[in-house]
Amino acid sequence: MRASYAVGLDVGGTRIAAGLVERKGRIVREMRRATPKGGPFGVVDAIIECIAEVSSSVHPSEIAGIGIGLPAQIDFGHQTVEFCTNLPLGGVDMRGLVMSRVKHSVTIDNDGHAAALGEYRAGAAKGARDFVMVTIGTGVGGGLFVGGQIHRGHRGLGGEFGHMVVDLEGPECPCGGTGHLEAFVARPAIIRVAKEAAATFRGSSILRRAGDDPDSITAEIVIEAANAGDEAAAEIMGNVGHVLGEALVGVVNVLNPQLLVIGGGIGETCPLIIERVSQAVAGGALAGRRDVRVVPAQLGNDAGVVGAAALAFDEYESREGMHR
Amino acid sequence: MRASYAVGLDVGGTRIAAGLVERKGRIVREMRRATPKGGPFGVVDAIIECIAEVSSSVHPSEIAGIGIGLPAQIDFGHQTVEFCTNLPLGGVDMRGLVMSRVKHSVTIDNDGHAAALGEYRAGAAKGARDFVMVTIGTGVGGGLFVGGQIHRGHRGLGGEFGHMVVDLEGPECPCGGTGHLEAFVARPAIIRVAKEAAATFRGSSILRRAGDDPDSITAEIVIEAANAGDEAAAEIMGNVGHVLGEALVGVVNVLNPQLLVIGGGIGETCPLIIERVSQAVAGGALAGRRDVRVVPAQLGNDAGVVGAAALAFDEYESREGMHR
Repeated sequence: MRASYAVGLDVGGTRIAAGLVERKGRIVREMRRATPKGGPFGVVDAIIECIAEVSSSVHPSEIAGIGIGLPAQIDFGHQTVEFCTNLPLGGVDMRGLVMSRVKHSVTIDNDGHAAALGEYRAGAAKGARDFVMVTIGTGVGGGLFVGGQIHRGHRGLGGEFGHMVVDLEGPECPCGGTGHLEAFVARPAIIRVAKEAAATFRGSSILRRAGDDPDSITAEIVIEAANAGDEAAAEIMGNVGHVLGEALVGVVNVLNPQLLVIGGGIGETCPLIIERVSQAVAGGALAGRRDVRVVPAQLGNDAGVVGAAALAFDEYESREGMHR
Repeated sequence: MRASYAVGLDVGGTRIAAGLVERKGRIVREMRRATPKGGPFGVVDAIIECIAEVSSSVHPSEIAGIGIGLPAQIDFGHQTVEFCTNLPLGGVDMRGLVMSRVKHSVTIDNDGHAAALGEYRAGAAKGARDFVMVTIGTGVGGGLFVGGQIHRGHRGLGGEFGHMVVDLEGPECPCGGTGHLEAFVARPAIIRVAKEAAATFRGSSILRRAGDDPDSITAEIVIEAANAGDEAAAEIMGNVGHVLGEALVGVVNVLNPQLLVIGGGIGETCPLIIERVSQAVAGGALAGRRDVRVVPAQLGNDAGVVGAAALAFDEYESREGMHR
């Protein structure tokens, strides 16, 4: 019998989302929980609990496998965690640890790759064979599809769109580089600029929305204000869109994708970003490439879960030697 | 009988190179001639003459086909010229025009793609499945290999590495963009900076090498001076390498290639560029990607001819249904 479900997990620095997912990407059962602090074993325990909970209603034989997206650099071929900034998982055999405690096959991948795969299977990139997904949140990540396949590169480490230089003299990036995209568009950059603006532009609603406490300003507050027409906030988010757009002009010129999907907590909640990226690409990309569509991600937080489940289905299909 | 040769042509803005090429990439006969000025028909005439000359010694049945690299944006799937800045070939059915006058099948592609294919088949990228080739000359071009195949993107227009932004406030690029890589590292940029330097640094040999005429300064003169240890020239070329390196850090983070090949008239004649790019990548790329090798192209001007011939061999193989 062909297994009808897979369990997808999206492990983040602060929370874990898990879902029981059908082959076409529909989530039939879902849960979220906080990511345990401390070492990798607590994270593994939490993953095991999530798997047990979302899959409790179906027979094990109905489950194709477990897919896990991690906020880490993954060597996909060897299924190893190379590097992880937000969780203590670097060098840890996550796949082995989880597999030793479940009856299913486990596949791990970078969370940006999983989100791109989710949007490809059931979201904004359905049917697109050559597309780029960029996620903007606390950091910048993403995935690149070439001919209907995730492009992982030589060691599975591709897709780090946040670490392209956009300004040789620009601000320092968390990775140590100078003037990288992430240093302009991710949450910390938005908050930094918004604090400055809140102090300067008295008419802006940013500070009021943060309860008059500059330290309570979040990127979400700035986006809310921008979406409500606040001028200072709109300028901040417009500039995020502008810089992202200029970086993506380069990506379009190098990769000639048919579609750009803008996702992540920041990317998919701010229409101004989509608008500015569209403008940058329409005006700045080389001839013949300007027909690239720019759209927000559709699956929101579910993209990672759906994509992780898709990894498990793919692994199952190739194991069973079946071809869709 | 299996055809043993293909004719490869590398059509540039100023000269056409043509060669009779064996399957493994050895050029057995080669010629160069100036590119005719005027309309596309003169260029086609010149191409026909080159084909006749290099293939005169072998029987037509021994020739797998004709491959042509053009300095143009090519829609590879449709085999059409989308856009061409240096020659009046935009919208011209180059493939049809040449094919109507020869007995062979004709395949056209972007010249940067052809050069990358040449280095892959018989040069610096032999055996590398995931690599990036960047050519630096009058402009910046290149090609991207993914899993042993040229990545052409949605409409065959990928590989334009020169048009990635590296400085949001930087100099204007010939394409109309701002602060693109090409505006920092191609011939016109080197000459512009060298003229300023020649006026300021009296001790530099740049001006003397140009016969004391600032308007005679060429990029080749600056490279010669840099290679001979001239300080001002070394600073200019070192900065070219630095900016190229920073841009390639982004490429490495996004694409995770195993190899970067630096080619073109500027790229392959200046060891300082290779050195600086290596430093930038080793110091700036994200963890796990720093093992990427940085090497100069090996085939020089022949890369385009060898690669164009490889296009013809590939087309022949797929037509004959043969598999190597």
